[in-house]
Amino acid sequence: MKILLVGGQGTIGKKIKNRLAAENEVITAGRNSGDIKADMTDPKAVEKMFEKVGKLDAVIVTAGSAPAKPLKDISYDDFMKGVQYKMMGQIHVAMTATKYLNKGGSVTLTSGILAEDPIPHGTVLSTVNSAVNGFVIGAYGDFLKLGYRLNVVSPPLVADSAPALARYFPGHTPAPMSHVVDCYIKSLKTLITGQVIKVGVN
Amino acid sequence: MKILLVGGQGTIGKKIKNRLAAENEVITAGRNSGDIKADMTDPKAVEKMFEKVGKLDAVIVTAGSAPAKPLKDISYDDFMKGVQYKMMGQIHVAMTATKYLNKGGSVTLTSGILAEDPIPHGTVLSTVNSAVNGFVIGAYGDFLKLGYRLNVVSPPLVADSAPALARYFPGHTPAPMSHVVDCYIKSLKTLITGQVIKVGVN
Ligand SMILES: NC(=O)c1ccc[n+]([C@@H]2O[C@H](COP(=O)([O-])OP(=O)(O)OC[C@H]3O[C@@H](n4cnc5c(N)ncnc54)[C@H](OP(=O)(O)O)[C@@H]3O)[C@@H](O)[C@H]2O)c1
Ligand SMILES: NC(=O)c1ccc[n+]([C@@H]2O[C@H](COP(=O)([O-])OP(=O)(O)OC[C@H]3O[C@@H](n4cnc5c(N)ncnc54)[C@H](OP(=O)(O)O)[C@@H]3O)[C@@H](O)[C@H]2O)c1
Repeated sequence: MKILLVGGQGTIGKKIKNRLAAENEVITAGRNSGDIKADMTDPKAVEKMFEKVGKLDAVIVTAGSAPAKPLKDISYDDFMKGVQYKMMGQIHVAMTATKYLNKGGSVTLTSGILAEDPIPHGTVLSTVNSAVNGFVIGAYGDFLKLGYRLNVVSPPLVADSAPALARYFPGHTPAPMSHVVDCYIKSLKTLITGQVIKVGVN
Repeated sequence: MKILLVGGQGTIGKKIKNRLAAENEVITAGRNSGDIKADMTDPKAVEKMFEKVGKLDAVIVTAGSAPAKPLKDISYDDFMKGVQYKMMGQIHVAMTATKYLNKGGSVTLTSGILAEDPIPHGTVLSTVNSAVNGFVIGAYGDFLKLGYRLNVVSPPLVADSAPALARYFPGHTPAPMSHVVDCYIKSLKTLITGQVIKVGVN
């Protein structure tokens, strides 16, 4: 499979790349890292990224962020940053992918556990993670008509991020990276679609 | 109770107003209808609306829309319209309400069944309805610290909209309006918080 992995040098992305690299052609993208330099929050850069890659079998996105603050400090603009960085960035990559995927192709996005399991400072992420899940639920039928599948992995706090982030996630058990990667592989290699894939649940 | 009902002249809003009017002071708002003229997509207009209302016990929002199109016709801009009209409009009303609510007050927003039960043409609504649900899940803890509750009602296709909309909702059973109104009353008058309230489920 020829796979575009946006965020392929990140904490989660690089572990996915490690798993896939032996048996697949994996092209990584990032703003300042990876095989292709592209900012997914810029629609024109997304178009150019796909033009460079050409026809492909799958797209995985493990990129996107949002401001983390207590509610009293969150502005309208902070929400809009989350919309742009994590929600619309991924949605636009998925929409654009429909012009480049081979038949049977798939798109796998990334949301996160805060969509259902909130933490202090996490409101913008709870909002935009849920939006990404909702996009997949809303759009998978149209992807299916085109011969494509569409899923989203909703990772919990991952083990490799626990040293830096565990204090913001009280009571959250960090997930082993191999379990997280399994979820992306499931989206990629089975025939499921329209799923919000949760580590340890699916 | 003194209640601000944004969208109080709409299909759902007017039935909520009917139920509440005898025993509560209900102030309705809309762009071109209701006691106060205010466009909730305009942050300044939201601030002015609350200044006019003053201290209050509850806010209910039954307003907000998003473009309905097949995925192939949905542009980046269509998503951003949904973000502005249905997602950020409601989020901004909820955030601003925290400056005006009396202790024990509540905010009740409106999402919709497309967050989990998709229809053709519904992708933007699936996305932004999910975002509103995610906001409530993310923010209710901060509301609780302020002494406020925060819920969202996720209505299915409602009976009064069935004549116009049923053909877009194949296989969806329209919900009796009284059941839909019950969900808003539950949010208003019980002590639940952080809930996505579904007609016929909760
Ligand atoms: N880590 C966790 O515990 C955890 C838990 C739940 C959910 N998640 C979600 O999983 C995703 C990945 O997390 P992570 O921890 O692996 O993040 P990370 O270590 O910060 O890596 C993110 C990667 O994405 C790239 N990237 C960021 N913004 C981009 C943009 N606008 N356009 C293109 N590439 C971009 C970065 O490269 P450049 O800097 O070169 O752009 C980097 O390679 C995020 O959406 C995160 O919210 C993570
Ligand atoms: N009807 C259904 O079957 C159904 C099902 C699921 C979910 N929902 C959701 O429930 C909510 C209400 O639906 P509905 O059918 O009652 O809608 P509706 O009949 O169109 O009524 C909407 C009301 O909101 C007001 N409004 C619209 N945009 C506004 C804005 N920007 N600022 C302030 N007020 C605004 C309108 O008054 P003005 O025109 O004067 O502004 C109107 O009173 C919507 O979010 C809808 O998506 C409806």
